[in-house]
Amino acid sequence: MTSTVSPIRWCGDRLELLDQRRLPHQVEYLLCRDAQSVAAAIHDMAVRGAPAIGIAAAYGLVLAAKAGEDWARAHEVLAQSRPTAVNLHWALQRMAACHSLRPDPAKLEAEAVAIHDEDRLQNLAMAEHGAALLPEGARVLTHCNTGALATGGHGTALGVIRSAHSQGRLAAVYATETRPWLQGARLTAWELQQEGIPAQLLVDGAAASLMARGLIDWVIVGADRIAANGDTANKIGTYSLACAAAQNDVGVMVVAPSGTFDLDCPDGGQIPIEERSGSEVLSLAGQPVAAAGTQAVNPVFDVTPAELIRAVVCERGAVTPPTREGIKTLLRG
Amino acid sequence: MTSTVSPIRWCGDRLELLDQRRLPHQVEYLLCRDAQSVAAAIHDMAVRGAPAIGIAAAYGLVLAAKAGEDWARAHEVLAQSRPTAVNLHWALQRMAACHSLRPDPAKLEAEAVAIHDEDRLQNLAMAEHGAALLPEGARVLTHCNTGALATGGHGTALGVIRSAHSQGRLAAVYATETRPWLQGARLTAWELQQEGIPAQLLVDGAAASLMARGLIDWVIVGADRIAANGDTANKIGTYSLACAAAQNDVGVMVVAPSGTFDLDCPDGGQIPIEERSGSEVLSLAGQPVAAAGTQAVNPVFDVTPAELIRAVVCERGAVTPPTREGIKTLLRG
Repeated sequence: MTSTVSPIRWCGDRLELLDQRRLPHQVEYLLCRDAQSVAAAIHDMAVRGAPAIGIAAAYGLVLAAKAGEDWARAHEVLAQSRPTAVNLHWALQRMAACHSLRPDPAKLEAEAVAIHDEDRLQNLAMAEHGAALLPEGARVLTHCNTGALATGGHGTALGVIRSAHSQGRLAAVYATETRPWLQGARLTAWELQQEGIPAQLLVDGAAASLMARGLIDWVIVGADRIAANGDTANKIGTYSLACAAAQNDVGVMVVAPSGTFDLDCPDGGQIPIEERSGSEVLSLAGQPVAAAGTQAVNPVFDVTPAELIRAVVCERGAVTPPTREGIKTLLRG
Repeated sequence: MTSTVSPIRWCGDRLELLDQRRLPHQVEYLLCRDAQSVAAAIHDMAVRGAPAIGIAAAYGLVLAAKAGEDWARAHEVLAQSRPTAVNLHWALQRMAACHSLRPDPAKLEAEAVAIHDEDRLQNLAMAEHGAALLPEGARVLTHCNTGALATGGHGTALGVIRSAHSQGRLAAVYATETRPWLQGARLTAWELQQEGIPAQLLVDGAAASLMARGLIDWVIVGADRIAANGDTANKIGTYSLACAAAQNDVGVMVVAPSGTFDLDCPDGGQIPIEERSGSEVLSLAGQPVAAAGTQAVNPVFDVTPAELIRAVVCERGAVTPPTREGIKTLLRG
């Protein structure tokens, strides 16, 4: 049940981050010795996945404290590294809460390790809650990568799939490739292969046709931010899957730790959506895929409205379907 | 208004096909001197696009007749080259209809040239009908490549966009990259650039989010086969776009010549959907994108039900919305 992949290794004086841009071809760790290099690794997507960037940012503050870096500046540079995932801010706030007049490196280190450890445990708990919603012989589809690589271990949406697989509940697993970064092809297919979970990859545009053919029971995805009403920001393409699921009466399950909920955000319209360079669409591994001079738009997240979501699952349980009241109760409980 | 790109050049003793697999990086023509090599070029997607493969197949029969090849075998190998686009069968049937006891090369050549020329003229006519449906300042999104490269010239869906652009009706053009073959990135973006039509490329999964942000008025696509009730087979991802359009009250326009209608096919459930090798999903621009041993499914077309389509347009006019009766009347008229 535990993960074979460790994307984040804390070594006391440095943070080692598995460089996910090089997977599955190379397994290489980046060494970060200060907050700035952690922020750069987050910004440049060496480490990605909402929970994982929260954990990495927490360790970034430990490095800042140990090196006597300017705390406010370290906090700021980490907070600015990516805009959409709220886990980053949640983790930084939690670190700030145990920061008194002078940062206490030992106390901060213990807090970062706790965030990391808790995420793993939360993953296992939400995986059980999510798997319980699946019928026997479920055929599931997931998007992007929400596995051990995206979290402290086990995974969110992929954690549900791993737990459901180990319970013998799954008849089929489909993974979308997730353009432009191909997290599904590069990371999810690789993780599933390492776990011995049979799966099939498909292009993002093919998911709807599989639903129409009756091959999918649930779409299971992670989240980068869940607004108070259940609207969910997640990897670009999630909303597209949710539209197809709505047309085909397929369930959409959002799986994320409680740190992904942003109750200060009333609805999805308030979630900042990161736009990245069009060059990510125009090339792959340095190879251009379009004629020189082509323009591209590259929003890297989208918002799925709560009414297209059948279940929101966190370590505390599930809300089916998500409502403002149900979410509030879940997070209080 | 005429195209700057000639994907199919008939030279009397040979057919020259622009090798679209090498675009936009290289402009190279394949020389075909017999039906078998034309069928291989269709199967291997050197030439693609429903109308273009119909035209190429017609010339393939001319080459067979000129070389004294076995007619039935040539017909068979061409008919089997791709399963979904009905234009192929339509063109072969039309060629067969002017074939008496012994094939008359001159007569067949005239027929193939007529099919080619008519397609160009039909494109211009359907482009006018389609453009007339667009509001002033329309923001349109297209999928795959349906331009001069996919047809005898001008294009179907992209023909509508070209005509609407020349009429000054368009405020924005978006093109999806269209995985796995990247026809949007490699071909459509290139054609639009050659025509001086400003456009933006996006990953397939991002189209729905643009619709949710109110940036798209119409999705304009081609077709590989339109059933009697209006259900439409087209490039994988089309149905996904139609689901998102339905959620966002965005119009879907299908543009195709009358040879794309298959009145013998009652509905989309009867359309054969080509599945190609998973290897097309597992690599991008020649680079492997997933770990060795990853499995993939690769349906290359999907079916959009008529109820998600706002307009079907051919050279004879438009049916809005498509119905069995409306389509019958349009094709009779």
